[in-house]
Amino acid sequence: MVEKSWVLIVLVVFIMHGDESLASDPDPIQDFCIPNPKFGAIKTAHLSILPCKNSSEATTDDFVFSGLKSSGNFTDTGLATFPVNPTIFPGINTLGISFVRADLKVGGINPPHFHPRATEIAYVVQGSVYSGFVDSNNRVFSRVIEQGEVMVFPKGLLHFQMNVGEKPATIFACLNSQNPGLQKIPSAIFGSGINEELLEKAFGLNHKQIGTMRRRFDPKTVN
Amino acid sequence: MVEKSWVLIVLVVFIMHGDESLASDPDPIQDFCIPNPKFGAIKTAHLSILPCKNSSEATTDDFVFSGLKSSGNFTDTGLATFPVNPTIFPGINTLGISFVRADLKVGGINPPHFHPRATEIAYVVQGSVYSGFVDSNNRVFSRVIEQGEVMVFPKGLLHFQMNVGEKPATIFACLNSQNPGLQKIPSAIFGSGINEELLEKAFGLNHKQIGTMRRRFDPKTVN
Amino acid sequence: MVEKSWVLIVLVVFIMHGDESLASDPDPIQDFCIPNPKFGAIKTAHLSILPCKNSSEATTDDFVFSGLKSSGNFTDTGLATFPVNPTIFPGINTLGISFVRADLKVGGINPPHFHPRATEIAYVVQGSVYSGFVDSNNRVFSRVIEQGEVMVFPKGLLHFQMNVGEKPATIFACLNSQNPGLQKIPSAIFGSGINEELLEKAFGLNHKQIGTMRRRFDPKTVN
Amino acid sequence: MVEKSWVLIVLVVFIMHGDESLASDPDPIQDFCIPNPKFGAIKTAHLSILPCKNSSEATTDDFVFSGLKSSGNFTDTGLATFPVNPTIFPGINTLGISFVRADLKVGGINPPHFHPRATEIAYVVQGSVYSGFVDSNNRVFSRVIEQGEVMVFPKGLLHFQMNVGEKPATIFACLNSQNPGLQKIPSAIFGSGINEELLEKAFGLNHKQIGTMRRRFDPKTVN
Amino acid sequence: MVEKSWVLIVLVVFIMHGDESLASDPDPIQDFCIPNPKFGAIKTAHLSILPCKNSSEATTDDFVFSGLKSSGNFTDTGLATFPVNPTIFPGINTLGISFVRADLKVGGINPPHFHPRATEIAYVVQGSVYSGFVDSNNRVFSRVIEQGEVMVFPKGLLHFQMNVGEKPATIFACLNSQNPGLQKIPSAIFGSGINEELLEKAFGLNHKQIGTMRRRFDPKTVN
Amino acid sequence: MVEKSWVLIVLVVFIMHGDESLASDPDPIQDFCIPNPKFGAIKTAHLSILPCKNSSEATTDDFVFSGLKSSGNFTDTGLATFPVNPTIFPGINTLGISFVRADLKVGGINPPHFHPRATEIAYVVQGSVYSGFVDSNNRVFSRVIEQGEVMVFPKGLLHFQMNVGEKPATIFACLNSQNPGLQKIPSAIFGSGINEELLEKAFGLNHKQIGTMRRRFDPKTVN
Repeated sequence: MVEKSWVLIVLVVFIMHGDESLASDPDPIQDFCIPNPKFGAIKTAHLSILPCKNSSEATTDDFVFSGLKSSGNFTDTGLATFPVNPTIFPGINTLGISFVRADLKVGGINPPHFHPRATEIAYVVQGSVYSGFVDSNNRVFSRVIEQGEVMVFPKGLLHFQMNVGEKPATIFACLNSQNPGLQKIPSAIFGSGINEELLEKAFGLNHKQIGTMRRRFDPKTVN
Repeated sequence: MVEKSWVLIVLVVFIMHGDESLASDPDPIQDFCIPNPKFGAIKTAHLSILPCKNSSEATTDDFVFSGLKSSGNFTDTGLATFPVNPTIFPGINTLGISFVRADLKVGGINPPHFHPRATEIAYVVQGSVYSGFVDSNNRVFSRVIEQGEVMVFPKGLLHFQMNVGEKPATIFACLNSQNPGLQKIPSAIFGSGINEELLEKAFGLNHKQIGTMRRRFDPKTVN
Repeated sequence: MVEKSWVLIVLVVFIMHGDESLASDPDPIQDFCIPNPKFGAIKTAHLSILPCKNSSEATTDDFVFSGLKSSGNFTDTGLATFPVNPTIFPGINTLGISFVRADLKVGGINPPHFHPRATEIAYVVQGSVYSGFVDSNNRVFSRVIEQGEVMVFPKGLLHFQMNVGEKPATIFACLNSQNPGLQKIPSAIFGSGINEELLEKAFGLNHKQIGTMRRRFDPKTVN
Repeated sequence: MVEKSWVLIVLVVFIMHGDESLASDPDPIQDFCIPNPKFGAIKTAHLSILPCKNSSEATTDDFVFSGLKSSGNFTDTGLATFPVNPTIFPGINTLGISFVRADLKVGGINPPHFHPRATEIAYVVQGSVYSGFVDSNNRVFSRVIEQGEVMVFPKGLLHFQMNVGEKPATIFACLNSQNPGLQKIPSAIFGSGINEELLEKAFGLNHKQIGTMRRRFDPKTVN
Repeated sequence: MVEKSWVLIVLVVFIMHGDESLASDPDPIQDFCIPNPKFGAIKTAHLSILPCKNSSEATTDDFVFSGLKSSGNFTDTGLATFPVNPTIFPGINTLGISFVRADLKVGGINPPHFHPRATEIAYVVQGSVYSGFVDSNNRVFSRVIEQGEVMVFPKGLLHFQMNVGEKPATIFACLNSQNPGLQKIPSAIFGSGINEELLEKAFGLNHKQIGTMRRRFDPKTVN
Repeated sequence: MVEKSWVLIVLVVFIMHGDESLASDPDPIQDFCIPNPKFGAIKTAHLSILPCKNSSEATTDDFVFSGLKSSGNFTDTGLATFPVNPTIFPGINTLGISFVRADLKVGGINPPHFHPRATEIAYVVQGSVYSGFVDSNNRVFSRVIEQGEVMVFPKGLLHFQMNVGEKPATIFACLNSQNPGLQKIPSAIFGSGINEELLEKAFGLNHKQIGTMRRRFDPKTVN
């Protein structure tokens, strides 16, 4: 009876502090670690790992993700991505793997980006997708890949995609980290507030041109 | 001129010795490592790592795999699997990830098995698949998953699948090791030659029953 | 004064939730991490790592385990195992290693099983033990090993043992994970509730035969 | 006698194939692994790991690097970097660490770039350097750091530097991989040959503007 | 309002228990993890990992360390070291790297010591420093290194330094663990209370000689 | 026919270069990797990994080690150790674990030493052994442990043993690296040739005393 109320106390504390932050991607040392539903707020806690459910309380639904049946919302470039991490799919917590569904409208693009902590395997569920990556010597490896084909983007390297077919394209991709991270080049460079003089010198653009780029990728305007 | 001939020498040595054997699944320390096409025979060499192509010789095709467009050959249980590792898809070498296409006829099963070195993410491309795994406490987590749903099988745990729908099912699965390994329970136990007395005691079966099981999974008969 | 009472609060919360669950087996980043005795209940907490004692409060006894002087309780197959993990031996917490004592009565067996997260080194303290493992190609590597001999069971592969000598056998085994996990084949397959039709197809057994196997390994009957 | 000549054979083979390619950055399993001087050509070999010297043949000079006493050559942006990896400093081979000296002229910049496989610690030996990085939420963390100060750039994240002082600046940086990799944004994006239509859509630039950027970072023109 | 007070409760609990203890040094699974300033006491908590700030609350100052501009306090052997770990520099938490400034008076020494969990890169900022390490075969690799030179001390091996120049020396060193650990030989052996008879036999010293050594390195006398 | 002779060529090359040197201790990516018996000389090769046998050529004997039935040779301090690594027991190659038998005469000691790359689990097969280790704060954790007891020595920390019973003692120890390394303090410090002035200052000994120590641990005299 008394104990029940103290649980609430700790829940309150967790609830107060916000977004999940995970600390590491090592080998698991248990079968699995499902975030405890009693600690519902823990998904937004600041603790860098997630407390586990008692394994006897885990359910099959903890290990099945049903949210990928339709695409996410499309951006201006005709891209909809639905990345799945332990916050929304508890079953992969501590297991060193995650996945994402990406949809591209006809002509839509996934701009150059990279995942700081993972290699990616991209499987074309439908469509024709120009896909590629850049290596450390600035060499591009790119090609159109069709339904049923798979392309690998090595760990941490810049990659990109464009729907060059005549119907929408869908990609299912796996990454070998439970939280691979993401840096999208146009917005990370021009929408993040890096010193303007540095950007001018880096890209050989003048004050006005940088200003145009910044307005284009201003996080207050686009997302 | 002279040098050219010496290359052949080493190739010959490699060709002689057979199947690939990889030594480890650590973080990469280069962008990628495509097995050298000049060393075509290296795929069957006994060296435990693969010599890399000069990165300037790598081509886009090294990073695209096109072999999954149709299913593999079906076994007696109505299962066709096509596992993809660095031997057939050089682009994933050293990158800590691999994948497999599995097809199940109506009523077909993927018998209980496990991968000693990887967690698996199974994405249902089409069909209705009863899927599940067993944890270290012998508890089963199983359910029918439909097209677009994903189930995770934690690292090293027994799992299984059965097509319970009315049309063929196709699964695309990722694993976070470039060579996850595979042990299929019926054949690893009854088709491998474990001492008969031990099997009788382990399963509570008599001499005749074990004999029946052994004939059923005899590697000379089935594969 | 006030502070003291709040400590109790958190203890209560931990006590309520049960079994230990550890999250990972990476390199240590401190000399050691002894679970805090003030948090006695933490051994059963759901947090996926164990809070450490202040290192100045660790004692020599935290690093010595004395519980292996006699065997554990024997099962029906003549096997007694005593696995030692951080819950009962705090000194190994975070250090990536654990161990087990196994005793086999004359004729006793350790049925086919595997550890999802570790390689095992088995040292025969006394007795003659038929020992072996199965590799990914369903090949058995097995032999009788005698007192003073050591056999290695590679990470995640099925292995088994049987006392073929004329006196009890004792094995001391090390595993390179602090929580290697365990899946015993007969009970994980037949005592776990996997769909019956799938089992019939996987093993080529009929409804009645599967029923017999299930009763034999029913967790309500045997352990 | 005969043996001696065969050594030469293998050397020849190695010499023929070019640049170093290392396969992984795991924990060492020996004290060190100095590339064998007898295999002088191995630094350019395609084998993905470096053969080690017999440890008795290693010398103190293998573990000391003296090449950082002066700066490297300056680029157009006023930057000179001297990255040190196992090819030029054999002593760090297999040890999971490397380093770099960077010099910036007054007003010089190190354009936005990232290392796919390492965290970086940057120590200002002299000068005043505006330094920063962008996180996965496109937030910039940047500041001027002075002589004796240290900034950390987390693994795989975009970072940049500009000499904002009135004298040349020198930085000594460590990275926790023996081969961290490098992708410089302006040239990796505009100097690598990514499909033009994709770049236009990604950056909101027109055909002419992309053409200008491409000429600016054309690897045939700049380095 | 109520929630606010509960935060204090947990803070109090953390405050009570003392020194930081970190559990592991794996790959990160997030961009960074800055210890939460609201949990100021967490630096002394017994939890083996540090709760993270909400990433939106991290500031640039979390990633810059300014404390190395002058040397630390000198010991009797003319050595001042200032090791920097996540407790004093939160920005490196979970990132697998740390660093240290070491100053040596003329003739000063850094006695033989080792770091149980890291390789070290030592960069001479100024001075002439006799530096070396011992490998597993008791072979010494040592030399005087000058300003701008770098020496590597492989993971876990004994190493040492002595200022052999005519002015003070300063070293900036990086280590590839966020908490490398340290064991200084004279004091770890003679100042730690190892059984005297064992020390006599190990070093071939008599009772009186061991007594002298122990008084010299008694932690009650020296630090 | 021609091919056969080329095999010999490569064997010759390997034979010429000497001792084994392994490069890393990561997760395995295959079931096992038995050094190829056809490459008998490979145990002394300079390649930093061992070429594997074709898995079909591996035999059960590759996985069983029978050499620990009796003790090794005793040193002056009454210690006999028999460390087992992949060179003498091929079955553990790439599996991240190794072991050692240590015997101590009555009153014999194992002097303070450490393993740079592993945690150790020491199981007392027979006898009474004073055992202990020193942590990073120079605190000793030591006790007499008896037959059947186990002590853990955390990764990289100094530890030591002395037979305080009235009969010989035998220890079986496991370490979680295939090549843990070893540094014995008395000989690594005084028998390795570290600069004398540095040793005098480090230990507070005079020229004559250091000379005595050096003669005692001179590798030309003792082993």
